[in-house]
Amino acid sequence: MRTVDIIQRKRDGEELSSEEIQFLINAYTQDQIPDYQMSAFLMATYFSGMTDNEVTVLCNTMLGSGAVIDLSSVSGVKVDKHSTGGVGDKTSLIAAPLAAAAGAMVPMISGRALGHTGGTLDKLESIPGFRTTLTVDEFREQLRMYNLAFMGATPEVAPADAKLYALRDATATVESIPLVASSIMSKKIAEGVDSLVLDVKVGAGAFMKRQVDARRLAQMMVSIGRRADKRVVALITDMNQPLGFAVGNALEVMEVSQTLQNAGPTDLTRLSLELAARMIFLGRITMTLDEARELAQKLLLDGSGYRKFKEVIKAQGGDPNVLDRFDLLPNATGVREIASPRAGYISAIDAELIGKAAALIGAGRDTKEDAIDPAVGVILEVKTGMKVDAGSVLCRIYHTSEDRLEDAAELIEDSFRLSKEPPEDRELILEVVS
Amino acid sequence: MRTVDIIQRKRDGEELSSEEIQFLINAYTQDQIPDYQMSAFLMATYFSGMTDNEVTVLCNTMLGSGAVIDLSSVSGVKVDKHSTGGVGDKTSLIAAPLAAAAGAMVPMISGRALGHTGGTLDKLESIPGFRTTLTVDEFREQLRMYNLAFMGATPEVAPADAKLYALRDATATVESIPLVASSIMSKKIAEGVDSLVLDVKVGAGAFMKRQVDARRLAQMMVSIGRRADKRVVALITDMNQPLGFAVGNALEVMEVSQTLQNAGPTDLTRLSLELAARMIFLGRITMTLDEARELAQKLLLDGSGYRKFKEVIKAQGGDPNVLDRFDLLPNATGVREIASPRAGYISAIDAELIGKAAALIGAGRDTKEDAIDPAVGVILEVKTGMKVDAGSVLCRIYHTSEDRLEDAAELIEDSFRLSKEPPEDRELILEVVS
Repeated sequence: MRTVDIIQRKRDGEELSSEEIQFLINAYTQDQIPDYQMSAFLMATYFSGMTDNEVTVLCNTMLGSGAVIDLSSVSGVKVDKHSTGGVGDKTSLIAAPLAAAAGAMVPMISGRALGHTGGTLDKLESIPGFRTTLTVDEFREQLRMYNLAFMGATPEVAPADAKLYALRDATATVESIPLVASSIMSKKIAEGVDSLVLDVKVGAGAFMKRQVDARRLAQMMVSIGRRADKRVVALITDMNQPLGFAVGNALEVMEVSQTLQNAGPTDLTRLSLELAARMIFLGRITMTLDEARELAQKLLLDGSGYRKFKEVIKAQGGDPNVLDRFDLLPNATGVREIASPRAGYISAIDAELIGKAAALIGAGRDTKEDAIDPAVGVILEVKTGMKVDAGSVLCRIYHTSEDRLEDAAELIEDSFRLSKEPPEDRELILEVVS
Repeated sequence: MRTVDIIQRKRDGEELSSEEIQFLINAYTQDQIPDYQMSAFLMATYFSGMTDNEVTVLCNTMLGSGAVIDLSSVSGVKVDKHSTGGVGDKTSLIAAPLAAAAGAMVPMISGRALGHTGGTLDKLESIPGFRTTLTVDEFREQLRMYNLAFMGATPEVAPADAKLYALRDATATVESIPLVASSIMSKKIAEGVDSLVLDVKVGAGAFMKRQVDARRLAQMMVSIGRRADKRVVALITDMNQPLGFAVGNALEVMEVSQTLQNAGPTDLTRLSLELAARMIFLGRITMTLDEARELAQKLLLDGSGYRKFKEVIKAQGGDPNVLDRFDLLPNATGVREIASPRAGYISAIDAELIGKAAALIGAGRDTKEDAIDPAVGVILEVKTGMKVDAGSVLCRIYHTSEDRLEDAAELIEDSFRLSKEPPEDRELILEVVS
């Protein structure tokens, strides 16, 4: 089997055999295929796509390249939630405590900010003391005690995916539907879950700009899950404006706290409740999805989700008081207001530009090695559909340095679109794929 | 300027600026961009293509990466001929002596066999003593004395192209129209010619399988040439069967000798005369193309081309007597006949399979490092359109070893297509692009 022939077959749109994909991934993981051949293969895959068969074999081969976390000693249905990446998307920190409070077992293995999108681990680490580097034993033990534990992927899980992801990041091959699907699903299956709720973002602020692509990605992941005997449901949700008002790590933790106390933004609350309900239902806590929705709502209103999050923060070494006293969180030293140049209706807020601006002042990272500034970010004062006057504050930039602040402010100014007529209402949850 | 952004822009079908292409090629040649980013770019280019502007900048940047051969001290219009690669294509060894005999200055910088296609240098080197590694001074001097000299590309010419070609060969990105066009034209412009006759092959045995692709490649090369103030004409010619009867280095030299004595195959003679006429006309030896055709014909019939080739063989250290005494050429030790399984008309002869079979027994090479066996090859006994009986000899395989002979014989058996009705006549010269 020659690597160049496999690349050529993929380039020419042919379906690869299981043996060819296994050979490619295993040999690459063992450094027997050079990066330059793999990156050509990845770009060919970007253009030619993959069949469900191919992507399942790809996923399973990456899964098999490393260790699988064994959660069989933890009783109950283990259910996780994963988002394909958005701006201001802190739903994991709301839906997971709600589902855990309902009795679902939630082993959350999360990622970090990259590019314009945020990462759950970075948000959690803005809480002083919070430790995301649990051992697998600690993770299992905490899951058993509190129904919920957060950690990052261990290097033992799907090393082929880690190696491939670094290459994709450097070669403009991140946004390939089969590569995204197999990357996500190999890690999620490796963490030993039974069920999975996926939030596939679509719009200006998401990797998938078009709903047809988001649907294809959702279908591919659900199909991989089904072949691995996992119950998987995917929501396709709008990312044509940031979710909630806050973008930036500590700022988002504050908004999580407000939302868990039923004082959060409408869109964020609504999506978090739906995700929690899906987790509760897939976690077999209720018989019907409607019962799960009622339960999630109740656990939000009675503060159970809020208390669960505090419990877990404490269990992982963090200071739970941050949820009541925001001054205990890292705080910015300066604020810059962005005002509306004229009156009108907000017709769009480009989430990608907002995410890029936040990353520019330190809330995100360009490369995996960059440090995060937990204090900085953006708080929107408006959402799509709202009417503003000339000079109204559109948002505030919270910063700790003037470095690149001007560039960030320009990006943010560019992100707001104004119209004379009110824009049409946009659905938040666009489709459900299962 | 970030390499990954350039890859992404090419991936997304955007037109790159001159600065971006120059940055990419120059940094890559200086080892400042890793192979894995360049191979992703090459695959993106395979799919997204390039505009005439982009490909011209690419060509000029590769040209500028190395030395240019200065032929300005040689008087007269310098005209070269280049083929995109075929099977049994020995036209250079016929057309160049004819054009030189007519008075055109023909500096021929040629390539080697790769994959299923043959190479002019390998064919010449099957002549005992023939030396293709001239210095530039020797090349210039021989050109001045005999109007014709053959040599290989020096490492100083377009090193960016050499580095890129090696990468393309390993990453299934050879067959990209803009990459082929810029590679050919950068080397041809670097060798200091004024005019260029291109033979763009199309069909089963060529890189370009479809006439629309061959046309686009021809147009792109003509356009690059025009922007560099070179007179360029491209013939698009059929490669759905080998050219002539002989495939293999010494065997092809024998057929060249026969053809230069007006005793060669019809298709080979016809195409060689047309290429020679185009060279004579672009070399400004005649006022019209028709006069050039008459002159080429005359120089074939009166033996001037034959004598010119002998002169040049002698000048480059080879034994000119090989053209009369084929026993002085390397000869095979065994012959294997391939017979027709049934009666019918030959409807097609897959030139790629014939080329691969010849390469398998030693006439070609898989990698640049492989040695060539000059003696071996295939001689067809039939051409497309001919009627055969069951058991008729279709071709003979000339070999020096039984190694891989069976595999080669199978490929060759597969290459012949038989039909009950005579096939339609196929044009040899399909189009002229200028």
